[in-house]
Amino acid sequence: MKVGLIGVGLMNGSLALDLKSAHPSVLVYGVSRTEATLSNAMELGLIDHRATIAELKDMDLVSIAIPVEATAFLLPKILDAVGPNTLVIDMGSTKTAICESVAQHPKREQFLACHPIAGTEFSGPQAAIRNLYKDKVNMLCETHKTRPELLERARSIFTNLGMHLREIEPIAHDRHIAYVSHLSHITSFMLGKTVMEKEEDEQNIFDMAGSGFSSTVRLAKSSPEMWMPIFKQNKQNVIETLDEYISNMEYFKSLLANDDYTTLVEEMKKINTITHILKPEIKINGK
Amino acid sequence: MKVGLIGVGLMNGSLALDLKSAHPSVLVYGVSRTEATLSNAMELGLIDHRATIAELKDMDLVSIAIPVEATAFLLPKILDAVGPNTLVIDMGSTKTAICESVAQHPKREQFLACHPIAGTEFSGPQAAIRNLYKDKVNMLCETHKTRPELLERARSIFTNLGMHLREIEPIAHDRHIAYVSHLSHITSFMLGKTVMEKEEDEQNIFDMAGSGFSSTVRLAKSSPEMWMPIFKQNKQNVIETLDEYISNMEYFKSLLANDDYTTLVEEMKKINTITHILKPEIKINGK
Repeated sequence: MKVGLIGVGLMNGSLALDLKSAHPSVLVYGVSRTEATLSNAMELGLIDHRATIAELKDMDLVSIAIPVEATAFLLPKILDAVGPNTLVIDMGSTKTAICESVAQHPKREQFLACHPIAGTEFSGPQAAIRNLYKDKVNMLCETHKTRPELLERARSIFTNLGMHLREIEPIAHDRHIAYVSHLSHITSFMLGKTVMEKEEDEQNIFDMAGSGFSSTVRLAKSSPEMWMPIFKQNKQNVIETLDEYISNMEYFKSLLANDDYTTLVEEMKKINTITHILKPEIKINGK
Repeated sequence: MKVGLIGVGLMNGSLALDLKSAHPSVLVYGVSRTEATLSNAMELGLIDHRATIAELKDMDLVSIAIPVEATAFLLPKILDAVGPNTLVIDMGSTKTAICESVAQHPKREQFLACHPIAGTEFSGPQAAIRNLYKDKVNMLCETHKTRPELLERARSIFTNLGMHLREIEPIAHDRHIAYVSHLSHITSFMLGKTVMEKEEDEQNIFDMAGSGFSSTVRLAKSSPEMWMPIFKQNKQNVIETLDEYISNMEYFKSLLANDDYTTLVEEMKKINTITHILKPEIKINGK
């Protein structure tokens, strides 16, 4: 199997590690804007060869994992370049704009829009880890638009990585993901900002921040180059989540300001039930 | 050594586990409002005997780890009850009201106000774990008001648990901790509320929530009975943090609404530097 990676960071680097473990004969070709990133990916054994988009003609799989604006821009050119048997997938955290970018493309049936719900707050080739995708969900969009045998190839690759597959339409994907992913990145960044502005003496953060704060602010380490385009492409949905979240924060503040501790406790108890929703041992049955 | 525990949940239960490991001869007496909790603590081996406050006369250490309002209410009565060589400490997440509750108490010098920066989102005797306090910071307040040999006893106990000791005045403690602890509990609860209100179909949360969301919403599992009194006692500081945080959320929203992506990226890059502040390998030198 020949695999082309557009972007050789956390997502595609981790994909390469698992594909190479499962299929020792796989050959991985890396494409990146940045020569240093490609060298790094070579040294880490993530890719076997440097390549350009023009050289991806006879790949079995081309996986795009770069900022979502760049994906929407490059995807039509990548489809132009690949041969008739290449499957092209993307890993972006938004799906509407990316699907729209190739809606009329003559090779649309060679593309599958994906969103693996996997990742860490780190980025770049050195962030790649084994088993990143194991037991994670992969959201597949507009599967009816992908040529059946290429769709089957994608399903087989993902299932072998240990992923659970779900289907969703791009517009629904972007609306839901704004709540369960994009919003929490913003709450985390703004928590970091609020504390850093106040606590000019960093020693106080060092000393007084417990594991709770670290956990809540973890996503504030995420890459701005990766996340700004996500917020931009999903702007309307993200603004809606911000409005609802800010209104909930104002509500909490008003309960406290008005000494309405009975309602405060009732609200917190209702929210406590999220424990059941987030049980880590829950497994999703793929189809 | 004889130790009395007022409250036998996560904090005091974990303390008991470590004290019993270090000193096999230690005898632990548990006090709780709830008989079932005491039985649970007995079965788990956290305590050796049930007790009442009146029976704590000859303890070497009495540790209070109950909701902070109850601490401020019971602390004077506990000091009334103990003998002249008992050290009384509390573990509460607020310090001003608790210190004020015994400011004029004739046995004030037998009390040391503490706040170990340690814990999990779980509560009750079954949440107790070994080494909860190892390598954690313990904030000590008004140490000059504690009788020197009792202060030395406290330092020795904490140091043997592996804790790093810092001193801080109660008012400063409550102001800083509002930012690095209380605020992140509220952002987490309100994130949970926002997502639960929107995602009536829990399957969507199951499927699309990644480790980032789980991490950011983890504190929304915290005990309302423990946290409401903290927000209440630290109301003015907490409201100040909420004002600043909400204003930062509004600012982020305005950058997005106005398509000011250059500033958005600059802001996110500045906040990224929190990585250095939160380095997990940082050790605090105790004094």
